[in-house]
Amino acid sequence: MKLNILNELREKNPVVLSAANFVTVQDVANSLNAIGASPIMSKEIAEAEEMVKMASSVTLNLGTLTQLQIAQMKKIGALATQDKKPIVFDPVAVGAVNYRLQTAQDLLHSFPVSIIRGNAGEIAALGGFEWNARGIDAGSGSGNLDQITQKTAQKLDCVVIASGATDTISNGKKIAHVYNGTPLFQAHVGSGDVLSSIVAAFAAVWADPFEAAQTATLVFAATGELLAKDQPKIGPGTFGMHLIDYLSKVQVADIEKIAKFD
Amino acid sequence: MKLNILNELREKNPVVLSAANFVTVQDVANSLNAIGASPIMSKEIAEAEEMVKMASSVTLNLGTLTQLQIAQMKKIGALATQDKKPIVFDPVAVGAVNYRLQTAQDLLHSFPVSIIRGNAGEIAALGGFEWNARGIDAGSGSGNLDQITQKTAQKLDCVVIASGATDTISNGKKIAHVYNGTPLFQAHVGSGDVLSSIVAAFAAVWADPFEAAQTATLVFAATGELLAKDQPKIGPGTFGMHLIDYLSKVQVADIEKIAKFD
Amino acid sequence: MKLNILNELREKNPVVLSAANFVTVQDVANSLNAIGASPIMSKEIAEAEEMVKMASSVTLNLGTLTQLQIAQMKKIGALATQDKKPIVFDPVAVGAVNYRLQTAQDLLHSFPVSIIRGNAGEIAALGGFEWNARGIDAGSGSGNLDQITQKTAQKLDCVVIASGATDTISNGKKIAHVYNGTPLFQAHVGSGDVLSSIVAAFAAVWADPFEAAQTATLVFAATGELLAKDQPKIGPGTFGMHLIDYLSKVQVADIEKIAKFD
Repeated sequence: MKLNILNELREKNPVVLSAANFVTVQDVANSLNAIGASPIMSKEIAEAEEMVKMASSVTLNLGTLTQLQIAQMKKIGALATQDKKPIVFDPVAVGAVNYRLQTAQDLLHSFPVSIIRGNAGEIAALGGFEWNARGIDAGSGSGNLDQITQKTAQKLDCVVIASGATDTISNGKKIAHVYNGTPLFQAHVGSGDVLSSIVAAFAAVWADPFEAAQTATLVFAATGELLAKDQPKIGPGTFGMHLIDYLSKVQVADIEKIAKFD
Repeated sequence: MKLNILNELREKNPVVLSAANFVTVQDVANSLNAIGASPIMSKEIAEAEEMVKMASSVTLNLGTLTQLQIAQMKKIGALATQDKKPIVFDPVAVGAVNYRLQTAQDLLHSFPVSIIRGNAGEIAALGGFEWNARGIDAGSGSGNLDQITQKTAQKLDCVVIASGATDTISNGKKIAHVYNGTPLFQAHVGSGDVLSSIVAAFAAVWADPFEAAQTATLVFAATGELLAKDQPKIGPGTFGMHLIDYLSKVQVADIEKIAKFD
Repeated sequence: MKLNILNELREKNPVVLSAANFVTVQDVANSLNAIGASPIMSKEIAEAEEMVKMASSVTLNLGTLTQLQIAQMKKIGALATQDKKPIVFDPVAVGAVNYRLQTAQDLLHSFPVSIIRGNAGEIAALGGFEWNARGIDAGSGSGNLDQITQKTAQKLDCVVIASGATDTISNGKKIAHVYNGTPLFQAHVGSGDVLSSIVAAFAAVWADPFEAAQTATLVFAATGELLAKDQPKIGPGTFGMHLIDYLSKVQVADIEKIAKFD
């Protein structure tokens, strides 16, 4: 685990461009800022070229997609590919909404992505596995999540993070897990969106997307766990705000003390 | 008062679809999640059919309407009517902006709604009563709010909630009141939007819209009051976050202890 | 310094219309409400006329501009000019994105604005000065910020606020500074957007835009400083929420005690 990427990130303060969803965008911006990146959001295709040039990585989030936004994402995707900037893709609700699954597949055919971050239901849908997803929630399935994650990574030729109580990460060959976390992540809407953007911040400063994905996931999960341990009575509303505080102050040594992964 | 609807809601975890306004959407999503529902937001008309199919109820909020969103709401409204999913309508600022009043009337002619939730000025405007509304605020009027609520419910053939320091609820025949609450609801932008979505969550699991409206209003008002009593120095910013915490943990017994209604 | 404008504002509770960005809009709405104004947001050009008529001042924020929003801003700008309602302009990221700079210049040629509020990089870009801006951040430059602010104010014939650790305010003749504040403003995304909207609230109730700008900037900076002093361990996430609490309760006497300006 390359925990020093966190220090690298804070030193370089990379600009991370997000085509965001409007539900969680404020949390995403503040979390990126807190971890040490510089967030920028854009909705206008006419500024895509400059935005991608300025950014060190890109997040594309399907959470409240519109046809206009899909066109913008295609443009951003093409430009980021050309400029060799890592793209993190967040396929919100593709497990529950076929229109979104088709849109995601269309986007993934238009340009390669470095990393996909979704919940189990979203990753299973992208990989073509049976899963009973439900709205924005992971739902439940009987499949082997290691296999689903690995096969989806192979199929889409990228790193895949299936996040949840245990996070499963694969680049198609290797499989890694992060066991840290807290149920408050599921209770707070937008935890996945925030993780995707933080993964993009790590990918912005580290060439190996598997290591970036693994480390970002551990940092995020462990930071939430630290907060939940310090404030055992915290609820899902205040958790979101305090998590931003914790992201801004968490140190490699804090994470090393509690890190559980393989 | 059917307070057990709260337990029913938590057991069923219904998907509530929102055509939301972009000012308060994050609070709405987190509050829905906290009370025990599964929020999903959508801006794209092409996914309306799948979204309505997946949802158990729908909220349409005029807070930052666009012509595109109105077209989406018409589609969602027609589909929800067809599928017999309850629609909660939140006519933000129709008392102050004639364009919004006309839009609301146009929507209400296009499809029937189960429940309308607004402040006094908004409900008075929909009912055709004199009232001095002001922006997003209720403003002031000399009319009898019981009569305004009841007549508006009769006119629009649905349940109407006029929320405020006292909440007035009518299905055109019966009139109910909820006396719980705290002035912090008015101090925090979006309390009305959140209430509308919580009403939709209750309506998703309970067939009688009057009972669903009455119970949801009591649960919301009493939860805010509990928070204000526990933290008497809390301000309007932190109130919003802690209210989400309280919504996630409030129990029927807590509400029964302080419930004031008729 | 006309600190009594704060009391005037709270007495008059002016409606402030915002063409907002979707990243920080919830903070903006709650902060306006907390300081004593009545926020209203709009995205639809068809309601621009009524919205401007209802409002006492207007904020135009480029943070997540779209071509549709630019058309709306032109309409709002023309109507507000006609009705003599002060316009506050927030040129987010014009120092880093040429498309935004051109859009800002186009808007500023279409209608006069009362006050521009940006960070050093944004103000330098509008004034035509060299500056190394970076995304939404101010970046760094070697220019004299007093001169940049004053010349930009002369060039654009309005009041200019270059906000930062020290805030510099000029109407082209006079130059004022506010030395209060806390680094948490930079750590919390949207502090600038919130300040712009609060400036609009002050301009809504006070005829002299230089005095309104100066006082609003002091009130905002000092309120943040008071919070940071009371809670020295607060992080950037909880800071945003508590700042809303503090804006709702801060009194002229509290500010007078710590005010540092010239």
